Amino acid sequence: MNEFELIARLTPGLPGNATVVVGAGDDCAVLDLGLPGRWLLFKTDAVVEGIHFDATARPEQIGHKALARCLSDIAAMAGEPSSALVTLALPTRFETGFVERVYAGLNALARRHGVAIVGGETTTNPERLLLSIAVLGSVAKDKVVLRRGSQPGDAVFVTGELGGSLAGRHLEFEPRLAEARWLADHFAVHAMIDLSDGLAGDLCHLLEAGGVGAELSSAAIPVSRAAKRQAQVSTRAKPPRLAALTDGEDFELLFTLASRDAVPLLDTWKARFPGLRLSCIGKITAEPGLRVRDRRGVTPSNVHGYAHFAQS
Amino acid sequence: MNEFELIARLTPGLPGNATVVVGAGDDCAVLDLGLPGRWLLFKTDAVVEGIHFDATARPEQIGHKALARCLSDIAAMAGEPSSALVTLALPTRFETGFVERVYAGLNALARRHGVAIVGGETTTNPERLLLSIAVLGSVAKDKVVLRRGSQPGDAVFVTGELGGSLAGRHLEFEPRLAEARWLADHFAVHAMIDLSDGLAGDLCHLLEAGGVGAELSSAAIPVSRAAKRQAQVSTRAKPPRLAALTDGEDFELLFTLASRDAVPLLDTWKARFPGLRLSCIGKITAEPGLRVRDRRGVTPSNVHGYAHFAQS
Repeated sequence: MNEFELIARLTPGLPGNATVVVGAGDDCAVLDLGLPGRWLLFKTDAVVEGIHFDATARPEQIGHKALARCLSDIAAMAGEPSSALVTLALPTRFETGFVERVYAGLNALARRHGVAIVGGETTTNPERLLLSIAVLGSVAKDKVVLRRGSQPGDAVFVTGELGGSLAGRHLEFEPRLAEARWLADHFAVHAMIDLSDGLAGDLCHLLEAGGVGAELSSAAIPVSRAAKRQAQVSTRAKPPRLAALTDGEDFELLFTLASRDAVPLLDTWKARFPGLRLSCIGKITAEPGLRVRDRRGVTPSNVHGYAHFAQS
Repeated sequence: MNEFELIARLTPGLPGNATVVVGAGDDCAVLDLGLPGRWLLFKTDAVVEGIHFDATARPEQIGHKALARCLSDIAAMAGEPSSALVTLALPTRFETGFVERVYAGLNALARRHGVAIVGGETTTNPERLLLSIAVLGSVAKDKVVLRRGSQPGDAVFVTGELGGSLAGRHLEFEPRLAEARWLADHFAVHAMIDLSDGLAGDLCHLLEAGGVGAELSSAAIPVSRAAKRQAQVSTRAKPPRLAALTDGEDFELLFTLASRDAVPLLDTWKARFPGLRLSCIGKITAEPGLRVRDRRGVTPSNVHGYAHFAQS
């Protein structure tokens, strides 16, 4: 049983209450605690030594990545992060300087996005470092964007360039908070998710949530320099476009909106975010499933996303 | 450097913002996100296999304990828990049935206290299970009780009976949510903390936060049956009263209020919570430090609380 099957098994039995707008299954939980005009966003995410980072990662990068992953989920709802708690599970032998550097990376990112670090916990995890972050944010009720909501005919967009993130970007990416809020402020975004499992995998989450399918144009998928370089250096590496489709940890935004908004979006985006590529990569279809169109025609995608999770 | 020294080193550099009422250093963070009349409470806590529970713990107990620890912190602020996220870091080989039983224990406790489980994450921690819970709650602004606020002359109270929790109670305790809210509704509680590090250790946290000291009456400290039994069974066990003073994981409430309220509190408590002992164990002093009065007189306490944290 893999991560998604396990979660599907556990989710139906979870207790709810009247505050829950959206529970398990989206990028963040959405809660109505009586805040005028706004919903709360609530999210946790963990990074584990040897799984999400290795010995080559600088401590600052580990702290940065742990918080950035959570902020990327707040971005995926078009929300604003407010505060975070840090759970640091430390190996039996640790150096104080190492922990201070983890916090330095985390604090710098928090400061850039106005996030308060309001406490947390240190505990022991003898064999390896584990860093779990809980983030609280909020979003205007009329601006929240969920995974569900895509309509047949919608255009599918992705920010940035995909693939090869594990070569370095996964430790240094900046969560797309400003971009997501600008999108929700200026366009009727139908559905959004951040890319952590890979374009194919996360697009499937979005399609399943919306009860729709999609057809991507292979040539339109933006491929990162890292993915191209890996394919040049090693014959064992994935072809670059397959890497862009299936590598994990891009932490870009994937979203859909009405096709009539596609050109106005591309025009205004260039002026507002000149340094960040935005690509229209395909369209939403009524027919379920993911299909990829290339020179040979349209074929069902049977590729899978990046699995963070060891199977039992 | 131990847990408390490390936290003291890290806390001053943490980023803040205008929403922070109380940041790191109390049982929960207290946040003002604009909720009319109420503050939000935000807390995370983790349990780790081999540290907070061992192979004899039933999976349901592990789930129960993980959430109950967080709810106990919400209780210590006189708050109401609202929702929780679950981070489950699983060993490489795990059984689905085990995970379902962890959730069964966690869900049952959540239902009893009206807490929604709104998602979370599963990840891999190859050598051992780690379960981290993030809880969101709220409290009326005029009812919140912090660690600071004790006044010289205050009476010091503790609920329940202390010591020997690791014999079993630490896996099954019920967080004192109803009791704490009743206290804050009916009395001007000056300061409160839940007992996780042991009476001596947690009282010292409360005293340091308030810039005061305390004198306890040794004979008034309520000693659990488990602590007495351990002393009878093993000559290597702590004397029962020392166990009550220093064992961790009691998860009872420790609080102070004006001495004029002490008798009215004891009278009304008995009628409201007949099954739960409430003990007045001493008084707050202007002179800092913790002193214990017994038949031999008053001596400074040099005992320490339970350390959850391996020292480097």
